[in-house]
Amino acid sequence: MQLSETEARRRATGSDHGVLSTLHPERGVDAVPVCFVIDGDLVAVGVDRIKPKASTDLQRTRNLEADPRGSLLCEHWNRADWSRLWWVRLSVLRSAEESATVARLAALLRAKYPQYAAAEFDAVLTFRIVAVSGWSAS
Amino acid sequence: MQLSETEARRRATGSDHGVLSTLHPERGVDAVPVCFVIDGDLVAVGVDRIKPKASTDLQRTRNLEADPRGSLLCEHWNRADWSRLWWVRLSVLRSAEESATVARLAALLRAKYPQYAAAEFDAVLTFRIVAVSGWSAS
Repeated sequence: MQLSETEARRRATGSDHGVLSTLHPERGVDAVPVCFVIDGDLVAVGVDRIKPKASTDLQRTRNLEADPRGSLLCEHWNRADWSRLWWVRLSVLRSAEESATVARLAALLRAKYPQYAAAEFDAVLTFRIVAVSGWSAS
Repeated sequence: MQLSETEARRRATGSDHGVLSTLHPERGVDAVPVCFVIDGDLVAVGVDRIKPKASTDLQRTRNLEADPRGSLLCEHWNRADWSRLWWVRLSVLRSAEESATVARLAALLRAKYPQYAAAEFDAVLTFRIVAVSGWSAS
């Protein structure tokens, strides 16, 4: 039921998207679906112009400036067969990385998502993984 | 792009699962996939024994005792066609409801999910919706 850290990281790395939760000063929690890459202990999320944003959508960036703690949940859902459910949760901290690292992560995002192939990102949010947990129904 | 509250509630109500985020005193945010029902301004999540739980999984219950604020994200993902993406976020507060209300919500959970048809819930977590936001790519 509980996934090993190695297996949890493998499944998260292979996930095509996740849910990033950050801390909002009043609401408590904000959560939003994100595209991401994992590279070692780094997670990167691109702020793009491809999925059109409401101005409020970038609340996540403001939240992270006030509190760097976040959570990235990757999950596998199956309506009919609950024995196939699993999820992985990465506890992350917003990090400042050198520009070469950010450029490498942006390249990984472009390689993972065809929609990003020619994308200019407004920003690439980087995080350090501080804890990993995972669960599988079987 | 921004969904009306009516449309956002309609989509959330029709979602087959969501991601519940709660506040953890150290990690900041915990997020976990959940099955749920929406009934007016109430949200209910069943704590079941069907999806086997690690003991730590019920951290969400402890989190909510310390801070009643939560967030339920429902989302539609499409790897190939990002013009079909949407998500709805319900900001919720853990609530104490009368037993008749809890029983009604448990019945709605059993009606929504065949796997719950004969389920005894260890608990039914109830929440009041305090804010609704939603986004659609097109």
